[in-house]
Amino acid sequence: MTGFDAVEVITTKRDRKALSDGQIDWVIAAYTRGEVADEQMSALAMAVLLNGMDRREISRWTDAMIASGVRMSFPAEALGGRPTTDKHSNGGVGDKITLPLAPLVAACGAAVPQLSARGLGHTGGTLDKLESIPGWRASVSREEMLAQLGSVGAVICAAGDDLAPADKKLYALRDVTGTVEAIPLIASSIMSKKIAEGTGALVLDVKVGSGAFMKDVSSARELAATMVALGTDHGVRTVALLTDMDTPLGLTAGNALEVRESVEVLAGGGPPDVVELTVTLAREMLAAAGLDGVDPADRLADGTAMDVWKRMVRAQGGDPDAPLPTARETQVVAAPADGVLVGLDAYAVGVAAWRLGAGRARKEDPVQAGAGVEMHAKPGAEVRGGEPLFTLHTDEPDRFARAEEVLAGAVIIAPHGSRPDLPALVLDRVG
Amino acid sequence: MTGFDAVEVITTKRDRKALSDGQIDWVIAAYTRGEVADEQMSALAMAVLLNGMDRREISRWTDAMIASGVRMSFPAEALGGRPTTDKHSNGGVGDKITLPLAPLVAACGAAVPQLSARGLGHTGGTLDKLESIPGWRASVSREEMLAQLGSVGAVICAAGDDLAPADKKLYALRDVTGTVEAIPLIASSIMSKKIAEGTGALVLDVKVGSGAFMKDVSSARELAATMVALGTDHGVRTVALLTDMDTPLGLTAGNALEVRESVEVLAGGGPPDVVELTVTLAREMLAAAGLDGVDPADRLADGTAMDVWKRMVRAQGGDPDAPLPTARETQVVAAPADGVLVGLDAYAVGVAAWRLGAGRARKEDPVQAGAGVEMHAKPGAEVRGGEPLFTLHTDEPDRFARAEEVLAGAVIIAPHGSRPDLPALVLDRVG
Repeated sequence: MTGFDAVEVITTKRDRKALSDGQIDWVIAAYTRGEVADEQMSALAMAVLLNGMDRREISRWTDAMIASGVRMSFPAEALGGRPTTDKHSNGGVGDKITLPLAPLVAACGAAVPQLSARGLGHTGGTLDKLESIPGWRASVSREEMLAQLGSVGAVICAAGDDLAPADKKLYALRDVTGTVEAIPLIASSIMSKKIAEGTGALVLDVKVGSGAFMKDVSSARELAATMVALGTDHGVRTVALLTDMDTPLGLTAGNALEVRESVEVLAGGGPPDVVELTVTLAREMLAAAGLDGVDPADRLADGTAMDVWKRMVRAQGGDPDAPLPTARETQVVAAPADGVLVGLDAYAVGVAAWRLGAGRARKEDPVQAGAGVEMHAKPGAEVRGGEPLFTLHTDEPDRFARAEEVLAGAVIIAPHGSRPDLPALVLDRVG
Repeated sequence: MTGFDAVEVITTKRDRKALSDGQIDWVIAAYTRGEVADEQMSALAMAVLLNGMDRREISRWTDAMIASGVRMSFPAEALGGRPTTDKHSNGGVGDKITLPLAPLVAACGAAVPQLSARGLGHTGGTLDKLESIPGWRASVSREEMLAQLGSVGAVICAAGDDLAPADKKLYALRDVTGTVEAIPLIASSIMSKKIAEGTGALVLDVKVGSGAFMKDVSSARELAATMVALGTDHGVRTVALLTDMDTPLGLTAGNALEVRESVEVLAGGGPPDVVELTVTLAREMLAAAGLDGVDPADRLADGTAMDVWKRMVRAQGGDPDAPLPTARETQVVAAPADGVLVGLDAYAVGVAAWRLGAGRARKEDPVQAGAGVEMHAKPGAEVRGGEPLFTLHTDEPDRFARAEEVLAGAVIIAPHGSRPDLPALVLDRVG
């Protein structure tokens, strides 16, 4: 009826031509309905990965993925006048920023409708972290979400199955066909969900480095520019920061361990890099939402961000004052020598936390709430041979050996007096 | 157990690296067993199409496809000392050459173990043509094949399901995923079957032009060189001719129509281009088999090739003297003007024959034995407006209109006295 044909769409991209709007609309809709087969979509995804898509194609591809499901919206009147603003990070090690950030931005007068995900592989998932809080639930109905945004100002919850279902299906396919690393597909996957979520403003935290999916600044910049263009084309005020992920964020990687660190930040303490990135992203989110008058650092200092956090956790059934779960076993890893810690590889720390039980290899695997890696020093610090460098946490002590194995290669210690050349936390801004 | 993983194989080729022997062996075997999924193999096929494979990779890929099934062999002692030699054509319009060629080469002292296929799309299939002979059957057991090769010297039959089953599965997948046109995959598909068939020598007729799958000489030359290298690497004496397929071969395209024309050639007549290509390919096949002393033109002239043809048809249950089926309806298409015929598009003639019922759109479709296109003039001939240019044959007269439609664009007539620049039949030789 439509006159489109999967082979013709595939060969168009294979032969380095641009897909028409009609081809894109058809192929995404027909794939969602199961009329374009997995083996056809994976061949197309590989052709897109190798031959690229232009701005119009990526924009239309994103539209088609949004149109495969529902598109949410949050009218300002329903939110007591709060403008919506959100953040997306493409995943890193120790990246718990969403936890203090959402209540902080809400404390400054915005509404934050954060649809988050569970973790896969060496990077943690925001929902996995929050689920370590006794009673907290990730699943929130659309009505509850709207009510909570109006009353508390922030929701962190799971995306419904009806949000960009084409993306869900395509992402699972890309995962098994070597086609994850296509910038047009990464960008449209992220942005289709954020646009469908209905936020008015968006700040993208694009991670770069060993612990990130983007290993080099130029790919990260290309991804950032692609996503900013997509947001702009869809009426979402979008800005992107490129931030360092060669080193883990903060001093913890794990679920309950990261919640504890986030609460420290909300209490006015916490590791300086986590505080700095939280405040920097909060400023960007507020500026994008047109709320320039408030300094988020004040809201951290005066405890209002902590108040919002507690109300946010309670609204989803959690007890913010209950003790967090801890792992049954711990083991200390000592520094191998005296000197200055000059390198602490984020990927290795992420893999160690994963091997300790904090992450999952397959979607259906459970995670351990208490498992993870605690770091006792960050690059730039003086260390002494034999003193604790890491504490490993797990419920299953047979996991220690494989975690230690990967951490052995994670650390670089230079002679005392060395001055390591540490990268800035924020590497670039695209917007 | 093997340590290989589909995603790792796909990303190797995606990232423009060469696949290892182990990766290739594993991926073909695991795909044949169903452990590598269709959507993984199609992504790999697209990566191969866009990033290529080197000579070692193509050779190993071919080995792996051969190893997925049985490998035949024909010991010279079982064939009364006849050396084996075969021909492969990658498909054209009116390409009935196998029919007179196999018995002709057998009449010169070689054994020809021709495993052939049915047609798909606008090119005809050798088995479809032979099946228009009353009683003839394409299916021959391995023992019958050996016996017939020894007694008659030629067999044209269907390949068994156990011959390169990986290729069968991969070909069906490529057909629906836009990955047919990858030279490494085309070459390994053809050569895996020909090498597994066990021939000692092979002549490749690589068709170039509108009616062929290769539209330009440079791609055809690349395909020819790739296949010659593959044959050589596998101990098969291989040579390739590039031959013109802008114009149909002979004066017929269809099943029984082409058998009739082939029998004319075997009787010492027939269209000059069919005779020329048959004799040229026969000389190459004999030379590759080390039988240089015999001139195949003599064996056409003295009737021995016709004798072998009749014995070959009878050995497979056919009656070579029975009348061939004819279509129930015919319709004449007249020349639109006086002048010199300077163009007769092979693709259009192929599509017309297909639309008349000679070909099939899907593997499971039947074909009409009598359907097809008879041409009354070939490029270079003087034609008169209103006189017959084509006779169309079909059992279903409602098919005439769509065949005429495509033929309307197939013919170019220049003013009387024009001297068309006709291409040579053999464009190049690679060996």
